[in-house]
Amino acid sequence: MKHERLIYLPLGGAAEIGMNCYVYGWGPADAERLIVVDLGVTFPDMATSPGVDLIMPDIEWLAERADRIEAIFLTHAHEDHVGALGHLWGRLRAPVHARRFTANIAARKMEEQGQDGGNVLEVLPWPEQIEVGPFRVGFLPISHSIPESSALVIDTPAGRLIHTGDFKLDTRPVVGEPFQRSLWEEVASVGVRAMICDSTNVFVPHPGRSESVVGPEIELLVAEATGMVVATTFASNVARLKTLAEAGRASGRSVCLVGRAMRRMVEAAVQTGVLTDFPSTVSPEEAREIPRASLMLLATGSQGERRAASAQLSRGKHLGLQMVEGDTFLFSSKTIPGNEREVGRIVNAFSEMGVDVIDDSSDRYHVSGHANRPDLATMHELVAPKILVPMHGEHRHLREHAKLARERGIAAAIAPNGTMLDLTGDEPKVAGYVDAGRIYLDGTVKFGALDGIVRDRLRLAMNGHVLVTMIIDEDDEPLGEPWCESSGLAETGRSNAPLVDVLEADLAQLVGRADAKTIRDDDALEEALRRRVRQSAMDEIGKKPEVTVVISRLS
Amino acid sequence: MKHERLIYLPLGGAAEIGMNCYVYGWGPADAERLIVVDLGVTFPDMATSPGVDLIMPDIEWLAERADRIEAIFLTHAHEDHVGALGHLWGRLRAPVHARRFTANIAARKMEEQGQDGGNVLEVLPWPEQIEVGPFRVGFLPISHSIPESSALVIDTPAGRLIHTGDFKLDTRPVVGEPFQRSLWEEVASVGVRAMICDSTNVFVPHPGRSESVVGPEIELLVAEATGMVVATTFASNVARLKTLAEAGRASGRSVCLVGRAMRRMVEAAVQTGVLTDFPSTVSPEEAREIPRASLMLLATGSQGERRAASAQLSRGKHLGLQMVEGDTFLFSSKTIPGNEREVGRIVNAFSEMGVDVIDDSSDRYHVSGHANRPDLATMHELVAPKILVPMHGEHRHLREHAKLARERGIAAAIAPNGTMLDLTGDEPKVAGYVDAGRIYLDGTVKFGALDGIVRDRLRLAMNGHVLVTMIIDEDDEPLGEPWCESSGLAETGRSNAPLVDVLEADLAQLVGRADAKTIRDDDALEEALRRRVRQSAMDEIGKKPEVTVVISRLS
Repeated sequence: MKHERLIYLPLGGAAEIGMNCYVYGWGPADAERLIVVDLGVTFPDMATSPGVDLIMPDIEWLAERADRIEAIFLTHAHEDHVGALGHLWGRLRAPVHARRFTANIAARKMEEQGQDGGNVLEVLPWPEQIEVGPFRVGFLPISHSIPESSALVIDTPAGRLIHTGDFKLDTRPVVGEPFQRSLWEEVASVGVRAMICDSTNVFVPHPGRSESVVGPEIELLVAEATGMVVATTFASNVARLKTLAEAGRASGRSVCLVGRAMRRMVEAAVQTGVLTDFPSTVSPEEAREIPRASLMLLATGSQGERRAASAQLSRGKHLGLQMVEGDTFLFSSKTIPGNEREVGRIVNAFSEMGVDVIDDSSDRYHVSGHANRPDLATMHELVAPKILVPMHGEHRHLREHAKLARERGIAAAIAPNGTMLDLTGDEPKVAGYVDAGRIYLDGTVKFGALDGIVRDRLRLAMNGHVLVTMIIDEDDEPLGEPWCESSGLAETGRSNAPLVDVLEADLAQLVGRADAKTIRDDDALEEALRRRVRQSAMDEIGKKPEVTVVISRLS
Repeated sequence: MKHERLIYLPLGGAAEIGMNCYVYGWGPADAERLIVVDLGVTFPDMATSPGVDLIMPDIEWLAERADRIEAIFLTHAHEDHVGALGHLWGRLRAPVHARRFTANIAARKMEEQGQDGGNVLEVLPWPEQIEVGPFRVGFLPISHSIPESSALVIDTPAGRLIHTGDFKLDTRPVVGEPFQRSLWEEVASVGVRAMICDSTNVFVPHPGRSESVVGPEIELLVAEATGMVVATTFASNVARLKTLAEAGRASGRSVCLVGRAMRRMVEAAVQTGVLTDFPSTVSPEEAREIPRASLMLLATGSQGERRAASAQLSRGKHLGLQMVEGDTFLFSSKTIPGNEREVGRIVNAFSEMGVDVIDDSSDRYHVSGHANRPDLATMHELVAPKILVPMHGEHRHLREHAKLARERGIAAAIAPNGTMLDLTGDEPKVAGYVDAGRIYLDGTVKFGALDGIVRDRLRLAMNGHVLVTMIIDEDDEPLGEPWCESSGLAETGRSNAPLVDVLEADLAQLVGRADAKTIRDDDALEEALRRRVRQSAMDEIGKKPEVTVVISRLS
């Protein structure tokens, strides 16, 4: 029998922010029993993935080894940790373990994709542990920006692992469990072989601030506002929703949740008992009848998402509600890098309406849900693992986090997606590389990010498109002249004649001079037409379009 | 004769950052004599303007009144103030006035577009004034992040205007003229009717810092670096280039400029005498032979531009130079909102190489070239204009800047692009609205941002494309079956058969069942085919592509 080993393999979330998916294994090499931690998504953007609906990790490696998967564990209910569950579960078909609130969200994700939500099993937090194959896994409460976030304590024959999940050190998190140092000390006291640790905020130099500090600031702001107040935050930040709603209530305002994601999250949090004393809310219909100064809306769309409530309000009426001069709009959130333009569009639209916008440039109305650099150092000290593996972060975050650990004398390894580490020895060792990548959900179809489909879309968008059709008769003679249609291109260029006329004249000339051999050869004729279109367009409008040639032969 | 009036009309730069273009006029309504201040560009992006090369203000209104334009004035040589000169001058044909360094750059811009650089006239700074029609215009030195930036003192029959251009209050700018309070006091002492004032940094709460503060920090960083050091900044920030090069020299390194824009700027600055004592540099060929620890590169591409030197280095060898583990890469710049992804890509690529990246998150190695909120307040106080018109900024910046002025009792008006203000009275009044917009340079063609061409490209990118060809014979009978080709779409969907096969089968069925009237009617047939393709694709892959139908009739 082969030597047994403990492996770690990130398939998403390592060398990127979002799309978390990690694999652990124990057993003889290439026959390890496996567990999966998180199945998250990341979001497409117009610049690199136009038309795509959702981006998920490529789990081909896992799917081929589905018989070796003991279980799937979910650390918390953020989209970048559970969003792909419903889409990918069918290829893994292992039981899913999560705490109550997370399980509620996860089961809904399963059912939305036609899977049985019954595959999601509720577990109790530490000290409960679930035995799956060679692993015993416990959910250790840790604070984050969504209720019931948990680190995983993974006991293996090679020792204890701690997979932190996303976390911050918050002793007053408003909703959910506070960070309990003593609990962590107890868990770490037996010795931790490796800690696999959140890295997103490693470059933030100051200690993280508690969720509880924003309450008084928000209360002040809302109390001083004269018109309607609209606040946006991440729908899943249930603590913040509570803080915002309480600030509304404290200033005598009725509170209205605008946006499905937000209503769902509050519902799930109340149902599962993690949210209590949430101020009662009014419906948008009721809100319309309430004087503006007595109203506060909590709206989805803090990242400028086009279809979310905030963007809708920035474009005018939404559900009969409308912002006007003198109202206040609060971003109780942080703009995720890359979303600046979308958020800016909303801010400027409100500015044009005369609405006072409190954006994310002050730190007064938002705190991060992730551990900053000093908090990570605290965690390194507290857990004192033999090995640290930075996860969840871009490459620069992983690299910096590894440096931070090494400064304390902890062995560290950078393992981007697809890098399998052997954690059995004193030092982490690279055990191999696995194809890891991104799968695009596009409409109802999934394909690989590198399959060329999106590349073709980007080319169409960059270069525009010309289509050429031509008919060749039974005697291999052109029937009429080539016909062109263009899209995404200027209608006229240098010569001031319509572009398609110029192209058609050039192609007619080419066909007129072509020898019989070329006319008989589809590939040669197609290539000649394509080249002429690109060259003529270059002369005429200074760019070379994408070209599709269709030759119809009557023979 | 009509009442004479003083007008202000922004055509670019007001309610956006970039693409500056402002018009002033004096005379009877609709017969004012005009001057133009700046002709800048803004840059396209993949998400909203794919394939576009450059974005310029729509100057149709000005071009129609070219006979009324006395002159064009350029405040400084940044692309967003002079970049459109060569492209648009042919429609305005008025003399261009600029100070020496700016004129050098501007003349080159003219010649690159086939215009006579001799139309750009060099002027001396204040107290010189140029008389053009009813205006006397002087160039008042002010500090910014490029040499010889100037505010314009515009004396009109209705009193003095000050158009600040872009500026900061820097008494030690390293290169170029310091801010001289006494000079400004003198200019303001006669009374200023209106100040038209830079707004970009109105939300930055602390006073701006001098260019001179970054020198010691950069020197320390470069001295401590062990491998090669590469620094990037805006090519036009000649002062920063000097600071960086001097830091290189101080630590015994040879300095090499990598990137055409940077070499050009230094050349222009030396030629025109604004830059003296720039350390001697080596060519990339020479640099290859120098030990890494004795080398410092200054590279273009601080915003992550794909083709610039920084991005090239992040992808591997560039001009025979390559970064390796232990080297240092410094962003002596700020990431402009919207460029985060591109810059992040470079940072992570360097991280993978083991290069230490100093990004823009600390404020130690970069200072802004714009006046912050307290600096704007200082300027309001110093100039004490009757009217303040915020310019150069997004709508939210203009609005906030107007608020700031009103707090001091100064009348203020927000005038986004296309808003004509009458500045003749005590209060600014809206005198009308003019079509203002964006012109895209695409290859060698210009078209309006709203002409639908780019919208079509975005649709192709979002939805993919299917083309359908069909031949109808002399008897109005289909000849063969419709033929489909797709681009930017999954090859197979729900049924696992090739998408085009499914579409062709569905179209063949449709054509088989179509009545003779539909087959004879191009529009009806085309519409029927298009709808079927969209519906079949929706069933098969869950999205509706763009469709082009070409019907060829042999009759």
